Amino acid sequence: MDVGELVDRVPRGDRRAVARAISLVENTAPQLREIMAGLAAHTGRARVVGLTGSPGVGKSTSTSALVRVLRDRGSSVAVLAVDPSSPFSGGALLGDRVRMQEHATDSGVFIRSMASRGHLGGLSWAAPHALRVLDAAGFDTVLVETVGVGQAEVDIAGHADTTVVLCAPGMGDSVQAAKAGVLEIADILVVNKADREGARTAARELRQMVAQVDRGPEEWKPPVVSTVAAKGEGVGELLERIDQHGSYLRGSGGLDSRRHARARQEVEAIVVGALRDRMGTVHGHADLDALAGDVAAARIDPYTAADRLLRALDRSAPK
Amino acid sequence: MDVGELVDRVPRGDRRAVARAISLVENTAPQLREIMAGLAAHTGRARVVGLTGSPGVGKSTSTSALVRVLRDRGSSVAVLAVDPSSPFSGGALLGDRVRMQEHATDSGVFIRSMASRGHLGGLSWAAPHALRVLDAAGFDTVLVETVGVGQAEVDIAGHADTTVVLCAPGMGDSVQAAKAGVLEIADILVVNKADREGARTAARELRQMVAQVDRGPEEWKPPVVSTVAAKGEGVGELLERIDQHGSYLRGSGGLDSRRHARARQEVEAIVVGALRDRMGTVHGHADLDALAGDVAAARIDPYTAADRLLRALDRSAPK
Repeated sequence: MDVGELVDRVPRGDRRAVARAISLVENTAPQLREIMAGLAAHTGRARVVGLTGSPGVGKSTSTSALVRVLRDRGSSVAVLAVDPSSPFSGGALLGDRVRMQEHATDSGVFIRSMASRGHLGGLSWAAPHALRVLDAAGFDTVLVETVGVGQAEVDIAGHADTTVVLCAPGMGDSVQAAKAGVLEIADILVVNKADREGARTAARELRQMVAQVDRGPEEWKPPVVSTVAAKGEGVGELLERIDQHGSYLRGSGGLDSRRHARARQEVEAIVVGALRDRMGTVHGHADLDALAGDVAAARIDPYTAADRLLRALDRSAPK
Repeated sequence: MDVGELVDRVPRGDRRAVARAISLVENTAPQLREIMAGLAAHTGRARVVGLTGSPGVGKSTSTSALVRVLRDRGSSVAVLAVDPSSPFSGGALLGDRVRMQEHATDSGVFIRSMASRGHLGGLSWAAPHALRVLDAAGFDTVLVETVGVGQAEVDIAGHADTTVVLCAPGMGDSVQAAKAGVLEIADILVVNKADREGARTAARELRQMVAQVDRGPEEWKPPVVSTVAAKGEGVGELLERIDQHGSYLRGSGGLDSRRHARARQEVEAIVVGALRDRMGTVHGHADLDALAGDVAAARIDPYTAADRLLRALDRSAPK
């Protein structure tokens, strides 16, 4: 399938074309520029919902349960499972997709795992590019599932319209969850495995913490939803909350500003990548590697090294 | 305390000067350049050990226990606790430092928490700068504790000589831990809370997984250490393993290459930061914000936007 065909077929929702385009994203293929240019006019329609949380809280099960309620409504759904930590664990993550098998034969569901290569910034451009492909393919909702506490969550919040943070009783108490900074990025908090001991306490503590974060008078207050995703319990309510957050975003102008910020990050990541490539190719003992050697040997400090590299970059910039 | 005094006092281990210098790092103070230049010649001596793992596995308790065994040996220790997720949760993280209180009056121990502002790249430059200060202050060992699964761990592995990844039975099974990519960055794996049910199984599974990762014939095989950090059990063995890894690194040339890579990241982060600042200030409807608006509105794709921004940056580069 050449680029012309891909650009033609992806917007018609051709699954093989979508899968192929995402593989090109994963492999940083040179055709990406042309594909993205061809798909640009078809983007901006899908709702992007991020799901994140520590390992073991039930993200895959919750994602699968959400797919079910969305399909019951007749919405088409794409799932992008991103592992921001490692190029090596793609296999393990794919194995986990076994929980998604019930949707394997449903033509209204597209499921894809992707490792984001452990590069600085995690999701920085691979996941946003894949989101672009899925958006252009016409899926009503794209669920982005990512494992992680910390930077990965901050990243996903930057790429989703609505961010759902999951926790579970017994997986570290909710104080620990708050410590990991989830409250600031969560649009919706979920206590999954709510049939377990400690679930009520966890939900109550999370509500108290949400109340303590000052978000201004007009701002969205993240609801705390209790679910037992493995049995489908509470998942309908979760979807209602996601819908409500969507309405809030459209009404408040927040959707535009989130999507603007997302585009900004995408462009910035591409530019920074290009500038990084240049850093390794500057000549005259002013390239990154040589300067790093001087810093490691305590001959110069990193700012002096950075100044020299910047000057060399500026001198070598194409006119 | 002015810059001259700081640069004079930090290398003598003056605690107030060290604390002040790290505050300047946190606040991105303009004096940073001068301070880093002044301290450069004193760096490169400390051993940097990273400790990471999901919330609730007992990182703070393990760090505190390691401090105890290091102090018993007469080594001076600095602890840097980094929360890579959020500027808001600094308080929660500091509260956790209560577990460190036994060391509060020990002049051979310096403890500091730091939020890394949730900026792209997590630890990208604040933590390395703080490590530089602690290194220059002459601490024998610097323990960097960070919460997180995913990018935060990849980051810490980039900044430490030795990376210790902690897990605990019942905090998600070890398959989940492997999924989060810890095996690839861990130099040493710890099963903490080893007196709990499932600890033996977790340790066995981790050993099997470590054996499956092909690291080449000469490479370090990450040992799996079982600890009950709250009782100090196994912590002596953990320190021995850290020492062994240090000997391995020195013998194999790995220490130099890790430190070179670390310096490279530091310089790169400063240069990228400077280039990012420029992106927002380019004129003629070619700045990042305007181009992001075009991308968000599906008028152009991110590569076309990036190309325009790069050309504008090149034209405006200082000669």
